[in-house]
Amino acid sequence: MNKKLLSACVAVVFGAGAGYALNAFAQQKPEVLVKQRQAAMTLQGKYFGPMNGMAQGKVPYDAKIVARNAGYLQALSEMPWDGFTESTKDEKSRALPAVWAEPAKFKEAQDRFQAAVVKLAAAKGDEASAKGAIGEVGKACGACHENFRAK
Amino acid sequence: MNKKLLSACVAVVFGAGAGYALNAFAQQKPEVLVKQRQAAMTLQGKYFGPMNGMAQGKVPYDAKIVARNAGYLQALSEMPWDGFTESTKDEKSRALPAVWAEPAKFKEAQDRFQAAVVKLAAAKGDEASAKGAIGEVGKACGACHENFRAK
Repeated sequence: MNKKLLSACVAVVFGAGAGYALNAFAQQKPEVLVKQRQAAMTLQGKYFGPMNGMAQGKVPYDAKIVARNAGYLQALSEMPWDGFTESTKDEKSRALPAVWAEPAKFKEAQDRFQAAVVKLAAAKGDEASAKGAIGEVGKACGACHENFRAK
Repeated sequence: MNKKLLSACVAVVFGAGAGYALNAFAQQKPEVLVKQRQAAMTLQGKYFGPMNGMAQGKVPYDAKIVARNAGYLQALSEMPWDGFTESTKDEKSRALPAVWAEPAKFKEAQDRFQAAVVKLAAAKGDEASAKGAIGEVGKACGACHENFRAK
């Protein structure tokens, strides 16, 4: 197998792992993909922010809001990744070259985040479990941004 | 009850109905609220677009994608509305003054959309039921945009 073919295969396998298999937008314009993935991040912030405030004791704990937001966050945590196609590499965004240079590490960071969010959603608002999970979600956000997003 | 007090009560009741009761972002900056509600609309488009293409026979029907996208759309269909606060009235956006002048009609349009999305999600990808529901969702999108969004 020559090098070119090998790298094409790696791209296909990584693509499937990152959710491309279900992406009916394979032909979507790069600027649209960037807008969509940024929209998912914006909404993750909307629903994670208040939970983070509660975990840090800055906002009174509200089990109903945490259960609702955690459910939203679970759906949102699956949405950005198919927007990081090679075609978006040169679009203006805060995504660092590492997104495309280190796909396995990027995928690992996504998985860490999603696993933490699944745990948070499973807590269904229970204060002790949710607060622990919120902390883990926050660390996963930070770790991914540290390596893959410009300051 | 004087007129001023009455209208304050109406605002409270409408606010609660529109999801403000669960909104920990009551003090959020207007431009952030606009960005967040637009992000929800962007993602509704991302996940509704392919389903609409399938219902119109432009894209081959895929039950797995429809079930997944319908689930996402159900969460997303709840997200924009608490971003239409009075404080955002003068922000640059395509929202028409009718959003604030006719809150009951605006709420009705949201409810119609959300009910159609709930039906679509309940179809769990079943082709006949999903295709009917996709048509209803599309009409609900269009009706709300017609009255409440600038062309």
